[in-house]
Amino acid sequence: MNSYTLLIDTIDAKGLVYNISKVLYEHKLNIEQNAEYVDNEVNKFFMRTVISGDFNYNSLLDDLNSVVPKESHIRLSKNAKKDIVLLVTKESHVLGDLLIRYIAGELNANIKAVISNHDVLGELVEKFNIPFHHISAENITREDHEDLMIDMINQYNPDIIVLAKYMRILTSKFVSEFEGKVLNIHHSFLPAFIGANPYKQAHKRGVKIIGATAHYVTNDLDEGPIISQDVVRVDHSFSWQDMRRSGRNVEKVVLSNALQLLLDDKVFVYGNKTVIL
Amino acid sequence: MNSYTLLIDTIDAKGLVYNISKVLYEHKLNIEQNAEYVDNEVNKFFMRTVISGDFNYNSLLDDLNSVVPKESHIRLSKNAKKDIVLLVTKESHVLGDLLIRYIAGELNANIKAVISNHDVLGELVEKFNIPFHHISAENITREDHEDLMIDMINQYNPDIIVLAKYMRILTSKFVSEFEGKVLNIHHSFLPAFIGANPYKQAHKRGVKIIGATAHYVTNDLDEGPIISQDVVRVDHSFSWQDMRRSGRNVEKVVLSNALQLLLDDKVFVYGNKTVIL
Amino acid sequence: MNSYTLLIDTIDAKGLVYNISKVLYEHKLNIEQNAEYVDNEVNKFFMRTVISGDFNYNSLLDDLNSVVPKESHIRLSKNAKKDIVLLVTKESHVLGDLLIRYIAGELNANIKAVISNHDVLGELVEKFNIPFHHISAENITREDHEDLMIDMINQYNPDIIVLAKYMRILTSKFVSEFEGKVLNIHHSFLPAFIGANPYKQAHKRGVKIIGATAHYVTNDLDEGPIISQDVVRVDHSFSWQDMRRSGRNVEKVVLSNALQLLLDDKVFVYGNKTVIL
Amino acid sequence: MNSYTLLIDTIDAKGLVYNISKVLYEHKLNIEQNAEYVDNEVNKFFMRTVISGDFNYNSLLDDLNSVVPKESHIRLSKNAKKDIVLLVTKESHVLGDLLIRYIAGELNANIKAVISNHDVLGELVEKFNIPFHHISAENITREDHEDLMIDMINQYNPDIIVLAKYMRILTSKFVSEFEGKVLNIHHSFLPAFIGANPYKQAHKRGVKIIGATAHYVTNDLDEGPIISQDVVRVDHSFSWQDMRRSGRNVEKVVLSNALQLLLDDKVFVYGNKTVIL
Repeated sequence: MNSYTLLIDTIDAKGLVYNISKVLYEHKLNIEQNAEYVDNEVNKFFMRTVISGDFNYNSLLDDLNSVVPKESHIRLSKNAKKDIVLLVTKESHVLGDLLIRYIAGELNANIKAVISNHDVLGELVEKFNIPFHHISAENITREDHEDLMIDMINQYNPDIIVLAKYMRILTSKFVSEFEGKVLNIHHSFLPAFIGANPYKQAHKRGVKIIGATAHYVTNDLDEGPIISQDVVRVDHSFSWQDMRRSGRNVEKVVLSNALQLLLDDKVFVYGNKTVIL
Repeated sequence: MNSYTLLIDTIDAKGLVYNISKVLYEHKLNIEQNAEYVDNEVNKFFMRTVISGDFNYNSLLDDLNSVVPKESHIRLSKNAKKDIVLLVTKESHVLGDLLIRYIAGELNANIKAVISNHDVLGELVEKFNIPFHHISAENITREDHEDLMIDMINQYNPDIIVLAKYMRILTSKFVSEFEGKVLNIHHSFLPAFIGANPYKQAHKRGVKIIGATAHYVTNDLDEGPIISQDVVRVDHSFSWQDMRRSGRNVEKVVLSNALQLLLDDKVFVYGNKTVIL
Repeated sequence: MNSYTLLIDTIDAKGLVYNISKVLYEHKLNIEQNAEYVDNEVNKFFMRTVISGDFNYNSLLDDLNSVVPKESHIRLSKNAKKDIVLLVTKESHVLGDLLIRYIAGELNANIKAVISNHDVLGELVEKFNIPFHHISAENITREDHEDLMIDMINQYNPDIIVLAKYMRILTSKFVSEFEGKVLNIHHSFLPAFIGANPYKQAHKRGVKIIGATAHYVTNDLDEGPIISQDVVRVDHSFSWQDMRRSGRNVEKVVLSNALQLLLDDKVFVYGNKTVIL
Repeated sequence: MNSYTLLIDTIDAKGLVYNISKVLYEHKLNIEQNAEYVDNEVNKFFMRTVISGDFNYNSLLDDLNSVVPKESHIRLSKNAKKDIVLLVTKESHVLGDLLIRYIAGELNANIKAVISNHDVLGELVEKFNIPFHHISAENITREDHEDLMIDMINQYNPDIIVLAKYMRILTSKFVSEFEGKVLNIHHSFLPAFIGANPYKQAHKRGVKIIGATAHYVTNDLDEGPIISQDVVRVDHSFSWQDMRRSGRNVEKVVLSNALQLLLDDKVFVYGNKTVIL
């Protein structure tokens, strides 16, 4: 039987749960999972429902649209593997973790390709029979390099683009092109240590805990909506390289948790925040 | 305006969300918060809804009962301070933490009394102008002591009885008398180290993490439904007394988290488990 | 038998452990605990030793000084209760936690007095038979207020001054007066959310984890050497008040952990960092 | 310059630090790191020292032996890559994680071979140009199978044998053959959920936190000295398969942390416990 995930976000109004569940009931759908959240401060309503049954896609959407406020966002997507593309630079730990999960069947996704501004990770990727594209940034402008990246990504038409330690700053053109689709892992517990070399910054400041943050990419560097964070303890005996070694374990887990949430259609974005249902 | 929490648990059936939300809609209620959970393995449906508005209590209950399966449990309770009674023995850390929260207004509860089988904590309790009752267990049978405890508790007719380090084993009579109302804090990460002296057991076993568990009390010692757990790291340099000192911080936080969940009407029990919505 | 803690920090040199342990051996001291740390990056040596035995204090210090480099810091202090003074404003949770630990005998300290710029916490403090001094900041200059605070603190000649949610910014005069003696709890995971209202800042940023930081006070606000940090998970459903409620549990634990480290003479400061042995 | 790690464990005695550091000083060694621990309860002394310099190995050992009690254990080993062999069954997550760390240069070890009672992981291992040996347990006795395993392991003469989700119970013969060299990852927070299917057990018990434990293998199943543990939160919505998915992240991190400690010569075993310096 078909299984779909329905995501609705809208301004809050009386009777929303009733009216939406009425439509689902009339379409004879089973509700497998259901969760709502109302942010009273900004008067927003969020609903995530996993439904199963035989139904007419367009007719269901029409009926849902007829019972919610005009400015609502309704997403209705089949529960199936999503297509993802990974962008990397030189570090292998996050990429490697995703590859190992992939071949173990842990990722509900197809890794269509890995694209990099360096060639060092090609050998690893190709062990797993996944296309690897090296697009060098040398001797061309940032804009030209990004255009090549964008073209290559678009060949694969991915649902999600994962920056798996892609160490280049993206232009607003790139961000606009793939709005709401780009997931990044930042190697600090944001908003602490924004920018370059967070482990060196953390070492210098003498913190006792370090962390990692997975977030959507927006035009503000390291300021996009946060999806997942985690931390690990360190102490005075850690050099910044030791912090990096510990932190990499956290980066892997945080990115993979965030990706899982996206693959399961559990994340709403509003303003600079996420709601996860 | 009146605010109530509605808790429904029942066998799962098609249209439950629709039918329940229809009743709420027809009674012109606002839905402030809403969450459902379906355990597909055992075919159970759980729903927690915070509602506000003017309504007829009995009429609403009747209408809800008419749309859910016969064996359903429906609880509808006003969002107000609950009455609680604390049972203690000699250790002050959990009791003290609750008292400090109480006078800071952090607990949405009235502490009606503290009852103990020893008298050492009386002085502390009375600083806070709360009745303290010492019911000695000396020179009387376990059954007689418990009867005195039960009588004293019943004078206060509490919604919740908190075993805040009450170090006596309860008989099934006590458990039956206050079924579903007794919250305990066990000083280990259950099911590890059931029974007496868990910190000594943990020290002997050489574990690297210790914890605490808040659970409902049932007839099986330390086997009741778990509400909340937390842990803290230890290492080889910890004596069992050091473990106890670290563990006490965890006990305080875990018990207070669990109590908060009960005060907020967020906990369902089924079988030996809890669902927290 | 007498028990002392010996703390030595100095520039690293060959034979330090040998030469220091030789002195201890010649004074016929038992070594109960011993730990060293060398920061190779800055060529610094740290050593903490708990010793017991009968010895001549000055003779031991002289002999130790004769085997270490000139610029060394040697502290040798009897393991006994330290005198502490607490500064508070209006919030009771950290103060209350310390008071409860105090009367339970968990703090190896004498709380000599609690001093506040407001009077609301006086009633709580006096329940515990501890002097409470209200020094209002109204109608006087910041400097005059601080002078009154300094005078009052100095009456008690404390080993450690704990800012247990004292919500005023200290001048450099205050910091100099009590250099290396002032412990603060900041209600964020520093260096994130420096300054006012960190829970509001965290809520606005949409973080998934919040924390607290205990640190020595220096002239740079919220920039002093960090002693202890901890965190707790939050999610989209937390208002900033909910974050504050969760965060307060962390504040209490972090401050009490840091204070314990100071009371146990386990903390070295160098530059803007701490070494904890 | 040569770098060595010196591990000494012995009964505690006066002057041990002095006498040992004297020997190191007389051999003109640099002390890079040094840590001691005394367990007063059992009167045991542990010391770990990283030394560098030019020295005569046998002469140093002789001099050290002359200053410590007779029953002491002294290990002095060059800081170099250790040889390890991995045993696996069918699950790829721990193996994969080790392989990815290996090719990233994160493991200070040579993976000499992977040996399995099944063949499913051969393809993965061979991507990394590491020998894979399939030794089927079908149609032979447990003893015969283990003899084949032992022979194969001995071909590689490993310093450490890692059970990276090797799902067979080992006989005491195997344990004796490789005493003190076998590291296992158990997929629960020991001592909770000893034995088979810990995630199913955890799900049935309704716990709110699950974990993993890395320990030395001894003759008592899941009872060996614990090296490292970690946990992750779960809730009522987790099926046991969801718990397994979350738990696998913990298993990977815990095993890799424990292996790192062994590779860095940081672990002492005594009784059923570990001291980690």
